[in-house]
Amino acid sequence: MSRPLITLLTDFGSVDHYVAAMKGVMAGICPEAQFVDITHEVNAYSIGDAAWTLAQAAPCFPAGTVHLVVVDPGVGSARRPILAEAAGQTFVAPDNGVLTRVLAADPRHAIREITAAKYFRTPVSATFHGRDLFAPAAAHLAAGVPPSEFGKLLNDPVLIDNSRPRQGPDGSIQGIIQKIDRFGNLITNLDAALLTSLAEGTWRLEIGPKTVSKLAANYSEMPSGKLVAVIGSTGHVEVAINHGNAANEPGIFLGQTVTVRRQKNSNIPHL
Amino acid sequence: MSRPLITLLTDFGSVDHYVAAMKGVMAGICPEAQFVDITHEVNAYSIGDAAWTLAQAAPCFPAGTVHLVVVDPGVGSARRPILAEAAGQTFVAPDNGVLTRVLAADPRHAIREITAAKYFRTPVSATFHGRDLFAPAAAHLAAGVPPSEFGKLLNDPVLIDNSRPRQGPDGSIQGIIQKIDRFGNLITNLDAALLTSLAEGTWRLEIGPKTVSKLAANYSEMPSGKLVAVIGSTGHVEVAINHGNAANEPGIFLGQTVTVRRQKNSNIPHL
Amino acid sequence: MSRPLITLLTDFGSVDHYVAAMKGVMAGICPEAQFVDITHEVNAYSIGDAAWTLAQAAPCFPAGTVHLVVVDPGVGSARRPILAEAAGQTFVAPDNGVLTRVLAADPRHAIREITAAKYFRTPVSATFHGRDLFAPAAAHLAAGVPPSEFGKLLNDPVLIDNSRPRQGPDGSIQGIIQKIDRFGNLITNLDAALLTSLAEGTWRLEIGPKTVSKLAANYSEMPSGKLVAVIGSTGHVEVAINHGNAANEPGIFLGQTVTVRRQKNSNIPHL
Repeated sequence: MSRPLITLLTDFGSVDHYVAAMKGVMAGICPEAQFVDITHEVNAYSIGDAAWTLAQAAPCFPAGTVHLVVVDPGVGSARRPILAEAAGQTFVAPDNGVLTRVLAADPRHAIREITAAKYFRTPVSATFHGRDLFAPAAAHLAAGVPPSEFGKLLNDPVLIDNSRPRQGPDGSIQGIIQKIDRFGNLITNLDAALLTSLAEGTWRLEIGPKTVSKLAANYSEMPSGKLVAVIGSTGHVEVAINHGNAANEPGIFLGQTVTVRRQKNSNIPHL
Repeated sequence: MSRPLITLLTDFGSVDHYVAAMKGVMAGICPEAQFVDITHEVNAYSIGDAAWTLAQAAPCFPAGTVHLVVVDPGVGSARRPILAEAAGQTFVAPDNGVLTRVLAADPRHAIREITAAKYFRTPVSATFHGRDLFAPAAAHLAAGVPPSEFGKLLNDPVLIDNSRPRQGPDGSIQGIIQKIDRFGNLITNLDAALLTSLAEGTWRLEIGPKTVSKLAANYSEMPSGKLVAVIGSTGHVEVAINHGNAANEPGIFLGQTVTVRRQKNSNIPHL
Repeated sequence: MSRPLITLLTDFGSVDHYVAAMKGVMAGICPEAQFVDITHEVNAYSIGDAAWTLAQAAPCFPAGTVHLVVVDPGVGSARRPILAEAAGQTFVAPDNGVLTRVLAADPRHAIREITAAKYFRTPVSATFHGRDLFAPAAAHLAAGVPPSEFGKLLNDPVLIDNSRPRQGPDGSIQGIIQKIDRFGNLITNLDAALLTSLAEGTWRLEIGPKTVSKLAANYSEMPSGKLVAVIGSTGHVEVAINHGNAANEPGIFLGQTVTVRRQKNSNIPHL
């Protein structure tokens, strides 16, 4: 029989005791749980970074997985703790927008405020709700307590801008560098379909001061040392250098504008 | 049925094969064990750092947990390998003081020297007792071998200074910055009760060249950019900057003196 | 009953979602699997580093362990995905030499190309075979699918130079610094037996601009601040400084030449 799966996504880093404290609390409540770390190296307090990372990882996990997300700059304040059911999985997090992308991916989601104090660790520290509130809630969920036991439905979750590209008056499409990964790959928020639908020579992609006009099938196909676009594993356009680090190019940074323009007579389709 | 839980706390880092080697050995001895990493990023050879981190994490874990602690600058020398039973859990470690704080937390602890070579991996490397001696002992414990099988009781464990605050002749109470966490929070060794028992305006806290006189309920309540005291999740006074990094302030460092003084006519109670 | 054990060794780092994506996919295929990370901090694209680390960790794991190795600079190109049976364990990896050392350790190994697309995740991304091809294969293996189901035997795996020492015309034996670990220990590729078979005073070891002539039983026995040789836990000669960092010495770097020469009338035996 399979064991309940709980993932963890935080900005706690790997040096302090915080992650282990949460796992210890959960192991006490749901001894058969299996833990999988998504990452604990989200930039401190970066809700947008956490929302993006969660949205890439969660769909890879099986139905029934409980995702515990603690990036919580407002800990101890009035921000609500919430749990959300979406895409057959359950998410436990502060109501600060960190679930924006997983909620957007399943319009039939249901969200509840977590208010049932009997599922909290006591006393609840004012500075570590991860250990005392979120982790216990996640573990009780994994142990089979139904979501309805934790609190009432809500319809007004905090949402953050989830950075969709937009089309300019001249027909160009403008996005951003959404993520720079360990290899220096520049992951944009432009859907892969945008470039795969266009013939080579009909478009150019401007990324900061650089211009790219070739779509490679994979990293290996790229010429060494040159920026090339590729369809990344997240389904978005990535800009990369084969065996190099595109993030080291001058003028490249997280959030930098990325624009796709038509060449000569070609048309960029509407989004 | 629940599986045996083994935590790991080392200074091995996450780049080398050392941690995996220990888990592989343990999985061979106790296949049903579940591993939880506390951290492997203790400063190299820092027994004090490891002792503090262990004491914060261990109480969050359920009874029966086996904690494997390998911060072992004396590996291969005459220092004894020990196992300790305390607070319903078992600790396996070198006898170098790394268990000081968990032993202090349960005066009814029992400590044994690990001498039963039949539980070791052979041959025992002179430089990696973690793999060849401590991990096998932890795994056999998790698999149900009783502590008494590993060796005789001892009463003279090596203990390190566990940094209790002291009261000066002028009534002031002096502690230190015990830990600086990922967020730059300055975790002191001053009990939370010390400040919560005092009315605002009756005390000031000196931390290096800085002075703090306000106790905030949580990080969010703090004004931005100013150092404020808060009751941290470990039960100690922390000094922090809301959404900032207190550790970057000039004059702040690990081990720095922290003094609580009475203002005017107020009295600081005895510890 | 014991659960299938899957280890992971990649150069994906711990910040991005890549490792979690692979574990999520595997948990969906083989829910009872237990995951153990060897490391995700292999230098990006470093096949040699990964091969060495795998060869140190794998022998510590029990028979039946599935090792998933994704250091894959050629992802999406024609390089073959392979699985290898060796020493009672199974290895899933790109055919780029990353298995060189574990294959060399068991001459009776069997290697297959992974071609059975029914075991892949669809569609297979051109840039993340770890998630879409290697992880599913590893999970199906862990779930009991026999290796022969994945594809045909092959006899021409890509192998890398596995850096064996060589003996010079003057009888000296020349190796390299194979690995520098977190503690700054310089792990050479010289077999421990080379020095243990020689009497002190009959040899000297040159490592870059430094000379070592003493073999210590363990780190603690070394005088502080001096380079000393020690028999490391991998069975190779290491050069270290007790409580210091030998890698910080001038002239020391990864791959640096290490030479053992006879003193006066002594003989260095043949390899």
